[in-house]
Amino acid sequence: MAIEDVTRKIQPLDATLRVRAQGRLDRLTKPLGSLGRLEELAASYVAITGELKPNIPRGVVFTFAADHGVATEGVSAYPREVTPQMVFNFLRGGAGVNALARHAGVDVRVVDIGVDYEFGIVPGLLDRKIMKSTRNLSVEPAMTRSQAERAVMVGIELAADAVQEGIGLIGTGEMGIGNTTPSAAITAVMTGRSVEEVTGRGTGIDESGRAHKVAVIQRALDLHRPDRTDPLDVLTKVGGLEIGGLAGVILGAAAARVPIVLDGFIAGAAALLAVGIQPLCRDFLIASHRSGEHGHLAILDHLGLKALLDLELRLGEGTGACLGMDLLCAAIKIYTEMATFEEAGVCGKA
Amino acid sequence: MAIEDVTRKIQPLDATLRVRAQGRLDRLTKPLGSLGRLEELAASYVAITGELKPNIPRGVVFTFAADHGVATEGVSAYPREVTPQMVFNFLRGGAGVNALARHAGVDVRVVDIGVDYEFGIVPGLLDRKIMKSTRNLSVEPAMTRSQAERAVMVGIELAADAVQEGIGLIGTGEMGIGNTTPSAAITAVMTGRSVEEVTGRGTGIDESGRAHKVAVIQRALDLHRPDRTDPLDVLTKVGGLEIGGLAGVILGAAAARVPIVLDGFIAGAAALLAVGIQPLCRDFLIASHRSGEHGHLAILDHLGLKALLDLELRLGEGTGACLGMDLLCAAIKIYTEMATFEEAGVCGKA
Repeated sequence: MAIEDVTRKIQPLDATLRVRAQGRLDRLTKPLGSLGRLEELAASYVAITGELKPNIPRGVVFTFAADHGVATEGVSAYPREVTPQMVFNFLRGGAGVNALARHAGVDVRVVDIGVDYEFGIVPGLLDRKIMKSTRNLSVEPAMTRSQAERAVMVGIELAADAVQEGIGLIGTGEMGIGNTTPSAAITAVMTGRSVEEVTGRGTGIDESGRAHKVAVIQRALDLHRPDRTDPLDVLTKVGGLEIGGLAGVILGAAAARVPIVLDGFIAGAAALLAVGIQPLCRDFLIASHRSGEHGHLAILDHLGLKALLDLELRLGEGTGACLGMDLLCAAIKIYTEMATFEEAGVCGKA
Repeated sequence: MAIEDVTRKIQPLDATLRVRAQGRLDRLTKPLGSLGRLEELAASYVAITGELKPNIPRGVVFTFAADHGVATEGVSAYPREVTPQMVFNFLRGGAGVNALARHAGVDVRVVDIGVDYEFGIVPGLLDRKIMKSTRNLSVEPAMTRSQAERAVMVGIELAADAVQEGIGLIGTGEMGIGNTTPSAAITAVMTGRSVEEVTGRGTGIDESGRAHKVAVIQRALDLHRPDRTDPLDVLTKVGGLEIGGLAGVILGAAAARVPIVLDGFIAGAAALLAVGIQPLCRDFLIASHRSGEHGHLAILDHLGLKALLDLELRLGEGTGACLGMDLLCAAIKIYTEMATFEEAGVCGKA
């Protein structure tokens, strides 16, 4: 299987499904449109899946972990050892994404796609390591084109396996010290905005740290001149392995008509690549929240997505995606559990 | 028991509790502050309740139903029969608030505090009827002062009973055809804004209907000149029975250190009255969402509250409160379930 085989399977949404879903929403015992974005979410779910009488889907969040060569440039507030340490934290259930996934009733699948650590065999950890960390994108390409393709294929295959098991809702998550740097680089290339505009403070560097990060990214873009019409070129030169994996998850889920709930900035960078590869996958995306990270809004604007939540989250891992999945399930319940005016014997508008 | 006995029990929050809660949040495995408003919510819960190791509270939404004399002025898009019809819908579990309460894992308690309908004995309905509908506030006071006091006491007693049963989280809900009209009147009086500024389209009147509604409210305010320093006078002259009941729930819950999750515009009007009666109860309030209804933002600004959600909801019933309660529980789980850096063996900031 190649990436193109998957992208070819992604079909445009059938607009009549959304209209039919809205027709049911309009008969429910509430003023027209009064459940606002919950109605929009329910209609999107029906249009994406084609299920006119949906059940609550089983959901998973894929949390991809990887390291970044560029972290040696001092672009992050945390040391690199934190990436494997947090992988163990995910596996023990002690991280933010674990708490919120339990709250939302979804599972977390932790994938090592490029952590600079020998885990050996660890129960619960999906070993899909492509290499131990990317290379330093400020001096050489982050990975080879073949590694970039493999990263995307890892995501595609994980999504396909999940769908095979009956998973009907997929959230995106990630962990990787330094990964807002490749995300900002990808965002600058794919949206055409300046590096300055899309680069933020990540986990908590100060303003001079941010200026340094901008300079590092600008240097990389000047050096590599990634081709925005070729998202795999962008991933190769200035990307990250977890970002490639997430782009693959998006493509794989869209091919199976499974909605993808995006987390924040890094997930957004992955979405820019996935939509660059196959523009149709955009309609399968739900933006869970607007991240506190600089540059996320540029991504949402470029993709034409409007975030559901604005809770000033900037943790990543899939934390926002969990909250978005929870809201989507609430929306499905509205759609399926509410009585119609007729069923309830309630008068309509005077 | 009188209203003053309850308001006297409401105490200022102990600021050191919030500091201690934030201290724990800062030791959890995440960058400082990276869970944004979830952290703020968790710290508020600790400060309100005094529970430094909180469990997930049992929650209820009180959905008060009442009719409004002013509905005869043609201020609503729906006929008055809808109020009792929706009460039956709530009791059968078919309304929006029922679906979202099930989602959030909280109960709905439906209270008849003034519906213009003889329910007789209906299982599940709490009969606290003060009268069948208020009077038409555009020509006479909506109720007597004694009825206003009784409405507030109904809410106080329901909150106290719930706390007695072990309920630790209360949401506000309501249903009453015409009730955005008294809510806008209360909002204009209590915030000092113009009627024009705080009057919206309710369940869906058009622009000329809204202009008429503004005129009706203005006439009422000119006629009654309610005294904003005496919230019971405002409730008496231009209020609603469900609004009085909700103000009582807020006071009763605050007296017992139970957080109150506000729904939208009508709940906001009730909060203006409760805070007018006892300013300290403001710190026990959590604003679940910013309503699509005109005027709600004026309320939130006046109270110094920032809504958690902006999902363009304008249904009422307690629907937004359910989503807010769900988020609050997510925040408590973050606080109690996440590992600290020390527990997880994760390095701190470099």
